[in-house]
Amino acid sequence: MNTIDTAVLGATGYTGAELIRLLDGHPNFTIRYLGANAQAGRRLDEALPGLRGSLGARVLQTAHEIPEEGIDLVFTALPHTAAAQVVARALGQGARVVDLSADFRHQSAKTYQAAYQNEHPHPELLNEAIYGLSEWQASSIASARLVANPGCYPTSVLLPLIPLLRASLVDCSQALIVDAKSGTSGAGRAPKRETLYCEINEGVSAYGLPRHRHAWEMEEWAGALSDGQSLRVRFVPHILPMSRGMLSTLHLRGKNVARWLDVLREAYDNAPFVQVLPPGVLPSTKDVAGSNRCDIGLQMLGSSQDEWEDVVIVSCIDNLLKGAAGQAVQNANLMFGLPAETGLPLHAQWP
Amino acid sequence: MNTIDTAVLGATGYTGAELIRLLDGHPNFTIRYLGANAQAGRRLDEALPGLRGSLGARVLQTAHEIPEEGIDLVFTALPHTAAAQVVARALGQGARVVDLSADFRHQSAKTYQAAYQNEHPHPELLNEAIYGLSEWQASSIASARLVANPGCYPTSVLLPLIPLLRASLVDCSQALIVDAKSGTSGAGRAPKRETLYCEINEGVSAYGLPRHRHAWEMEEWAGALSDGQSLRVRFVPHILPMSRGMLSTLHLRGKNVARWLDVLREAYDNAPFVQVLPPGVLPSTKDVAGSNRCDIGLQMLGSSQDEWEDVVIVSCIDNLLKGAAGQAVQNANLMFGLPAETGLPLHAQWP
Amino acid sequence: MNTIDTAVLGATGYTGAELIRLLDGHPNFTIRYLGANAQAGRRLDEALPGLRGSLGARVLQTAHEIPEEGIDLVFTALPHTAAAQVVARALGQGARVVDLSADFRHQSAKTYQAAYQNEHPHPELLNEAIYGLSEWQASSIASARLVANPGCYPTSVLLPLIPLLRASLVDCSQALIVDAKSGTSGAGRAPKRETLYCEINEGVSAYGLPRHRHAWEMEEWAGALSDGQSLRVRFVPHILPMSRGMLSTLHLRGKNVARWLDVLREAYDNAPFVQVLPPGVLPSTKDVAGSNRCDIGLQMLGSSQDEWEDVVIVSCIDNLLKGAAGQAVQNANLMFGLPAETGLPLHAQWP
Amino acid sequence: MNTIDTAVLGATGYTGAELIRLLDGHPNFTIRYLGANAQAGRRLDEALPGLRGSLGARVLQTAHEIPEEGIDLVFTALPHTAAAQVVARALGQGARVVDLSADFRHQSAKTYQAAYQNEHPHPELLNEAIYGLSEWQASSIASARLVANPGCYPTSVLLPLIPLLRASLVDCSQALIVDAKSGTSGAGRAPKRETLYCEINEGVSAYGLPRHRHAWEMEEWAGALSDGQSLRVRFVPHILPMSRGMLSTLHLRGKNVARWLDVLREAYDNAPFVQVLPPGVLPSTKDVAGSNRCDIGLQMLGSSQDEWEDVVIVSCIDNLLKGAAGQAVQNANLMFGLPAETGLPLHAQWP
Repeated sequence: MNTIDTAVLGATGYTGAELIRLLDGHPNFTIRYLGANAQAGRRLDEALPGLRGSLGARVLQTAHEIPEEGIDLVFTALPHTAAAQVVARALGQGARVVDLSADFRHQSAKTYQAAYQNEHPHPELLNEAIYGLSEWQASSIASARLVANPGCYPTSVLLPLIPLLRASLVDCSQALIVDAKSGTSGAGRAPKRETLYCEINEGVSAYGLPRHRHAWEMEEWAGALSDGQSLRVRFVPHILPMSRGMLSTLHLRGKNVARWLDVLREAYDNAPFVQVLPPGVLPSTKDVAGSNRCDIGLQMLGSSQDEWEDVVIVSCIDNLLKGAAGQAVQNANLMFGLPAETGLPLHAQWP
Repeated sequence: MNTIDTAVLGATGYTGAELIRLLDGHPNFTIRYLGANAQAGRRLDEALPGLRGSLGARVLQTAHEIPEEGIDLVFTALPHTAAAQVVARALGQGARVVDLSADFRHQSAKTYQAAYQNEHPHPELLNEAIYGLSEWQASSIASARLVANPGCYPTSVLLPLIPLLRASLVDCSQALIVDAKSGTSGAGRAPKRETLYCEINEGVSAYGLPRHRHAWEMEEWAGALSDGQSLRVRFVPHILPMSRGMLSTLHLRGKNVARWLDVLREAYDNAPFVQVLPPGVLPSTKDVAGSNRCDIGLQMLGSSQDEWEDVVIVSCIDNLLKGAAGQAVQNANLMFGLPAETGLPLHAQWP
Repeated sequence: MNTIDTAVLGATGYTGAELIRLLDGHPNFTIRYLGANAQAGRRLDEALPGLRGSLGARVLQTAHEIPEEGIDLVFTALPHTAAAQVVARALGQGARVVDLSADFRHQSAKTYQAAYQNEHPHPELLNEAIYGLSEWQASSIASARLVANPGCYPTSVLLPLIPLLRASLVDCSQALIVDAKSGTSGAGRAPKRETLYCEINEGVSAYGLPRHRHAWEMEEWAGALSDGQSLRVRFVPHILPMSRGMLSTLHLRGKNVARWLDVLREAYDNAPFVQVLPPGVLPSTKDVAGSNRCDIGLQMLGSSQDEWEDVVIVSCIDNLLKGAAGQAVQNANLMFGLPAETGLPLHAQWP
Repeated sequence: MNTIDTAVLGATGYTGAELIRLLDGHPNFTIRYLGANAQAGRRLDEALPGLRGSLGARVLQTAHEIPEEGIDLVFTALPHTAAAQVVARALGQGARVVDLSADFRHQSAKTYQAAYQNEHPHPELLNEAIYGLSEWQASSIASARLVANPGCYPTSVLLPLIPLLRASLVDCSQALIVDAKSGTSGAGRAPKRETLYCEINEGVSAYGLPRHRHAWEMEEWAGALSDGQSLRVRFVPHILPMSRGMLSTLHLRGKNVARWLDVLREAYDNAPFVQVLPPGVLPSTKDVAGSNRCDIGLQMLGSSQDEWEDVVIVSCIDNLLKGAAGQAVQNANLMFGLPAETGLPLHAQWP
């Protein structure tokens, strides 16, 4: 296969850095353009000293645009709204795009506006954008011009949830409670008092209430990917003193709970990046930090007083990999007809 | 007031160390005896270098027993079952006891056995033991010979819950979901692979399922301290990469939610160690690390589809202070007729 | 004694917060005024939620000035240069001042300019300012109007060094190598990319080279407090992934090394906040975090090839206590005739 | 090239885990045998959940021995002394060995005994063992049966030091002061109180004095790899609250200091894993965590009072990669005629 010429826009944030690392080790994608507005003109390794060596001498360019010609694939890791502008331009130049912002994750401009509090800049593209939950959308992704890379929290929640919803095993008459915990890299690299080392270290807190933007995304795609089961999500995210990693605790009720692990195992039998653990084994985020895996564990809590049983599901991802750059590369693999796992780490960097 | 001669048994664990620090700064309690089996014979500051200086030269003795005479007050920070033996002996010698183990937290030997999987060594003492949730048991504690210091998780959950239960505002037809997050000091100082630095750092995981021992304690005292409201608790604790601090997220449903903060404020109006935050403000564990406070925040999530409304309550304590040594000293203050806040830190050590 | 009416200017930084915590627990100093420019008008506990409770409702005012009347004592925890302006004004209004900035740490405006790269705004005050290394300047401090609180690094280095210099035991023909390690709170609370959680966590790096400002301070006061021994200092500080704590490793050569611990012990026999450890025992910063202590350990490395012997000294402080707010209160105690240890924590908050 | 059949002994420690991760991604080495005494009989992913997926179902065997036949290459990540026994056996069975223990790092049994306090179990093998500092021993390694993988600290110190010693630029009349800082993974995975999370977190301390074992190794190979320059090393290591990463600060004196960076650049021009930074730029361990690189920065401190100039060199590695498993694979690459960088990560996993 020929080389696929690739651009990364938003190269110097935490997600951008991870994209570059993955792409540099990828056998098919070749980095041709690195855009980062605030640092344009600097060497890459001045902004990202972890990339010293081969790539380090590359010079950063702007993130507003891509070169006129020769780019096959663009990853946009830009703030929402800004991303949509650049995506439209890149598509117009004939590139295919994996957008890591939230701009194309919703099917309607109205939902986008409810969640993000601003008008959608390119609603005409919403129809063709494919929601890139790789394991469930492989064939649509394969032919897509534009893939909307899922949010980190929705990825960690939808992967365990969809097979159970499709099997009609979950009590949807009650809200699904998702209590999630994320490392701080999810908050981005812009200097803010709240994410200073001394403000995060040795503490945990909830944030994003009453309704974090990702709650809309979970509800929309829980329905759309399960033949329209309607599920209300009560989502409470927390920020933790660690750089990477995301753990979502799903508190649910359902029936035939003893079968759930089998249902999950069957769903992900051929999915190397989704690991379903043995009964009673629950994952730690350490198990997946540095890996593109999502590890899922389940614990039955015994019968409740009615027909339903209580269950806890714990789902772990690395928020920068399966939750962002890793799934983005997985989606690009699918778009270009490559095996999904090409160039992606299966193992955690541990400890 | 005369000096109250005090013994600490289990002096060199994390809770014991915190007790000694508090007692050394206390105007009424005087440390007369420090017991720690494994380190008996060593200087205190060899085991606990944070206590170098005044107390450091004290020599550790055994934790099996207290001196024959002259001890008014004993704190037992020993493993369960072992604690009960020493408690019985100390009471027999005429001392009053605050027991920080789980041995006297339950009203019946049967519940104890269900939760701790062993027979209670001194069931005859269960009747007179007072459950030491300081803010709700002050008068019983004042006359108690034996106070059972509450578990850390139950403390963080019961403080916000009891006033709401007493006002019949909580939907008890559904299980209360408690998703809790704790620093690692709660796991104790015994060397174990699972609590090595490299196993905990940069990771989060759930543990203690399907039913952590503290679930029994929460259910028992939620009922007993609220005129018998019966509440089922689904409790999922997580361990976090931080030394101190505990955050409990309570996912509940109830009615008249707009009044809840007022109910809480009224309940704790004269309780300096319980702070009810303004609407929409949620605490971090950093706000209370080093303090004996419990900070409680509440967030309404909007009406659900039926008569009930969804609410999230976040409750933070320092697991070694309000969750252990701090509440123990608060209880001892009450036992000896001192103001509850004597010798206890109100402010966090921050950052 | 009457209450001493106190102002804290720069109340919402890490040092300011620690000052307030200490002062609120102090039996003689009463907080009358809290100044913090950027947050003026807000409640104290909005800026510093660790102080919820008694003090929390206080309203922050500006840090440019103090009230016209009624303030006996001012702590200035402001950036250098800005501090000097406010100090001059406060002295003019009759208050006594402990300045925690660098503005009055040097005896000459010329050295100040060399170290801080700007002209001294109030050179006329340099003469009367007393360098507040509490253990060595107690009598000058007692009568001072203006005390310059030492830098954190110099405090950790001068305390072990001065007694040895005074006894002429150190080889001053060679530079003293100080390799120091500091927690991140020393970098302040202003939002900067370099001190974001994800940039500091899981990493260590050197900074401040070729010559950190504190090198001038170490050299000046090593000489001035040891009858003019002239010592060159090679100072390399490092920033570490922890909030509090500072460890300085002194690599020196000297003679009669076997006597050094005795010399140190004798020097600090009556100094509760300086602990000299037994032979071969070296402190951790955890031993002093939350304490106003400086713990000093020494290790002989064996004879070198000439007359001198190699020694390592390790000195630990909490950079926000003995390295800043703690020593400031210690100095204020001395200024107002109180025992040095009044209101100051001897024990570490551990773990 | 045919597959090279490989065994890892000591598979479940931190270094063993990293070896397995690297080998599983390596195009030429195939893992045939995994030995781990204490966990023999368990699935690999029960001991190392970060390796769930492809390899996870492998069953651990004993680490005392390797299969009779069919193993070309053995990595021994075992405690010293134990390692030598297994190494001798493996060599006897015709395998080639990279030993990550200290057993074959010294040229004489006498030095080994001085450093490790026990008799060498196989002194007859010392002569043929090659010290595996990859960049300086490539041709000897290529033909070696037994490579002694260097210690982590010596690797970080020798890489910057050797080119300067060979150019006779360093003042060897004085001891070289190496003040080093290491993450906690270097202390291993055996449960010990000193390496519990709460004992390490938020603290830093020196250890291993008066003479850490690696000081012998530094001195021996500084001499042997620089035509016999004799250098005394004063080595003070510190343990830090982070999992991975090692930073060595070298405090030296020398001449023609302005040329040093050129000398280093020239030495490592073709060495992808040694990066020499621009003047005044100093590395953080974060820049190399997850990478097999050693990043070296230099800062001139100005002339000292005599002919020599003062310099600080900061050298960073990931202690588990270039300091252990990474360099071991690099050495195995050289032994089997592969490019040195085969299967090794150049980029850091950041943040």
